Amino acid sequence: MAVMLPRTYQHQVCSVARSLELVGDRWTLLIVRDALRGVHRFDDFRAQLGVAHNVLSDRLSRLTEAGVLERRRYQQRPDRYEYHLTQQGRDLWPVVMSLLLWGDRYLAPDGPPKLPLHRGCGGRLTPQLTCTDCGAGLGPGDVELAPGPGAKGSIASRK
Amino acid sequence: MAVMLPRTYQHQVCSVARSLELVGDRWTLLIVRDALRGVHRFDDFRAQLGVAHNVLSDRLSRLTEAGVLERRRYQQRPDRYEYHLTQQGRDLWPVVMSLLLWGDRYLAPDGPPKLPLHRGCGGRLTPQLTCTDCGAGLGPGDVELAPGPGAKGSIASRK
Repeated sequence: MAVMLPRTYQHQVCSVARSLELVGDRWTLLIVRDALRGVHRFDDFRAQLGVAHNVLSDRLSRLTEAGVLERRRYQQRPDRYEYHLTQQGRDLWPVVMSLLLWGDRYLAPDGPPKLPLHRGCGGRLTPQLTCTDCGAGLGPGDVELAPGPGAKGSIASRK
Repeated sequence: MAVMLPRTYQHQVCSVARSLELVGDRWTLLIVRDALRGVHRFDDFRAQLGVAHNVLSDRLSRLTEAGVLERRRYQQRPDRYEYHLTQQGRDLWPVVMSLLLWGDRYLAPDGPPKLPLHRGCGGRLTPQLTCTDCGAGLGPGDVELAPGPGAKGSIASRK
């Protein structure tokens, strides 16, 4: 596959690296962005993204294989399919939103093109992640990375 | 520049697209990840990432130009520099963490390689974004995108 990464990278035992292997291609997260906004059909993705037919076709296949998108037939003879996000795909929303909020802050000299607002409340969004236990908003200094069950050499990873 | 995107993509008035123009290259967010973990020197990035010399050199230059990294001299004759994240760079933390949490959930069959914990509290992290007004945890269905000042044709963008 043309988009495969070098071995050294692929074998990194890190969830950031693994995620980027799948969605680190720049078109991929734009496809997810559009699917989150309700785009589902091949021609509509093409029109939105201005992406080459073969590139879009490849990315949609990869995302479907990976379980991020699922195909749903909406027409017979000839068969035509829509692409919908699975739960796994919808769970990329925080990634897409964090990129949007960062771009709004640093790459939008005229101000945000679109304002993300809490529907019905009107509040803005904070990119801060929160602690599930105490609810505190967290920054880089507040988080430590402890060895997990999937760490190299851990019992769980010895198969 | 080899990593430039096609025109159609570059000109999208969208903060997600703009962010991905800068950090959508798969190595770039791994460099940011490592810098967040305290990696600052060229050879250390190389050792961590297994990335080709010229690719790393190109990405560090681009990130420095874009204001994500800053160079700090740590040795004279010959001059040697470290790369440190600026505030703009540190603010990519939620992007990196969202990718990590997503990978932990969907791409870690043996469990997370590393467990991100709230330092001193031990709580886990939620990828949910929150509303700055009411503090509610938000999902894709809770957010609307209103036209912002940087939208095409808005007064602020007519220069």
